[in-house]
Amino acid sequence: MNAGPILVTGAGGFIGRTLTQRLLGAQGGAPGQVTLVDIDLSHAPPEARRIEADLASPGILDQALDPLPRLVIHLASAPSAASEARPELSRAVNLDATLALFDRLAKAERPSRLVYASSIAALGSRFRSAVDDDTPPRPSLTYGAHKLMAETALADWSRRGRLDGIALRLPGIVARPAQAGGFGSGFWSDVFHALVRGEPYAAPVGPEAMAWLMSVGACVENLLHAAELQPSSLGPIRAFTLPALHVRMADLLAEIALQTSRRADLVSFAPQPELETQFGRYPPLATPGADALGFRHDQSLGELVNQVLEDLDG
Amino acid sequence: MNAGPILVTGAGGFIGRTLTQRLLGAQGGAPGQVTLVDIDLSHAPPEARRIEADLASPGILDQALDPLPRLVIHLASAPSAASEARPELSRAVNLDATLALFDRLAKAERPSRLVYASSIAALGSRFRSAVDDDTPPRPSLTYGAHKLMAETALADWSRRGRLDGIALRLPGIVARPAQAGGFGSGFWSDVFHALVRGEPYAAPVGPEAMAWLMSVGACVENLLHAAELQPSSLGPIRAFTLPALHVRMADLLAEIALQTSRRADLVSFAPQPELETQFGRYPPLATPGADALGFRHDQSLGELVNQVLEDLDG
Repeated sequence: MNAGPILVTGAGGFIGRTLTQRLLGAQGGAPGQVTLVDIDLSHAPPEARRIEADLASPGILDQALDPLPRLVIHLASAPSAASEARPELSRAVNLDATLALFDRLAKAERPSRLVYASSIAALGSRFRSAVDDDTPPRPSLTYGAHKLMAETALADWSRRGRLDGIALRLPGIVARPAQAGGFGSGFWSDVFHALVRGEPYAAPVGPEAMAWLMSVGACVENLLHAAELQPSSLGPIRAFTLPALHVRMADLLAEIALQTSRRADLVSFAPQPELETQFGRYPPLATPGADALGFRHDQSLGELVNQVLEDLDG
Repeated sequence: MNAGPILVTGAGGFIGRTLTQRLLGAQGGAPGQVTLVDIDLSHAPPEARRIEADLASPGILDQALDPLPRLVIHLASAPSAASEARPELSRAVNLDATLALFDRLAKAERPSRLVYASSIAALGSRFRSAVDDDTPPRPSLTYGAHKLMAETALADWSRRGRLDGIALRLPGIVARPAQAGGFGSGFWSDVFHALVRGEPYAAPVGPEAMAWLMSVGACVENLLHAAELQPSSLGPIRAFTLPALHVRMADLLAEIALQTSRRADLVSFAPQPELETQFGRYPPLATPGADALGFRHDQSLGELVNQVLEDLDG
């Protein structure tokens, strides 16, 4: 891991908690080197420096960027469904606070490595055929629009040599906390929780729904890999769709049922066309750019489910 | 032309002046229906309502949007070279003031038709092959990055039904005023001025440089066509690369020389690699989306040069 101060925004969130644990382990617990920002850091390891506040509050950015980090992992985000319901919230968090962070880093004495958690929502959901690195991004949610705008700003500051940025478009990360809310794609996580608990659940898509999925463990590995990439390995393209498993709902249910010894038919189907269109119609995905840089998915549906069940158990 | 108030930003600029003349002609000079905003409106027709101020100044947006326009043509922009030299200027004009206009319109009681002058700079300049509507935009200048970000916001407000927006990616528009400055691509205009005056000129690209060009007359026709499109003819895609003639510098010089009875060798070549890469390496262009909606280029190099020479004469 790069020597020098590290800043993690959104450190109290679902991905942030797992990342923080890995990061402090890898650092050998060097005190004061890792700064965490989030409105709730009650789960954060004590050896980290904690700024328990909204990144957009006055003065918080000053505090977070002193000392100037060598590495920033920017996870703070308003989630997709909340962003769609309140576009002004998405504007404030996903665009304004994000651009403010980028601009402040761009004015510093030296460029920081910035790993930005973007989303496949930047690509949209209206695909005519398989998706690859040349698919033009056409967001179909405000969340994705703001992610794409931030990606564009990050690439431009990187081109100008003022940032050393890389945006990773995260696929559906499982398993988010049960009923976490805020994420329209949350049902892909809720099916795990239902089967683990042996409770019935009505999925809002049909058994043929398709998603791009990744375990939170693999997601954190990819974020840390992005943090360590040599600047020389990055060209003008600074946004990468991560590799992900292309998973059918029926296959996912069968695999979870197998590994948990539950009955897959605990999950029934009550498709909502709007949700199915936005979050259940993903075509095959090719990610040659990210593959060449060494980013990886979970390798198999069995390994993905096993990893998720271990995380839920831990 | 749509009945109801019309607002034109950047109305004092190169395209804005020609547009304003056409618009007031088409309106039959209806007083008070056309509001113009720009820092210099000394060339504006007297029958228009004039707000001589920076669109980003406090209170100007309030003034410009009362009464609420049915049609907004947003031309105000910091040009490409100036934006590259001063990214904070581009941020203020091309992003912040533009998003503020969009957001204010999106909050109004009914959606306005918004015609936004975007640019081929949103696509970038690193093309592996011919460009079409599926080419992923990868801006290579801050100007283009901010244009792309604004396009993304416009599409999202339109998807939400709060705006009825259409962004036109303008190609190189000729002939800008001589030595206008601020536009890196200005040499494609300067060759016209040199030959018209019979003066020597050293072009900063070679004779094989290629551009996508359009006369200001055709550009204004396309902006007015966008203003009149039926909302039902627009789907989720709200940014269109306009058709343009694919012109080689040597062919352009020969045609201007022919029509002005000058010697083409008044223009010599002193290629600057950076300018040639950004503004002289355009591949063939296909624009099926814009073509289907009825947007048009100048049809032939002869007609383009003839139109430009008429404009310069007028």
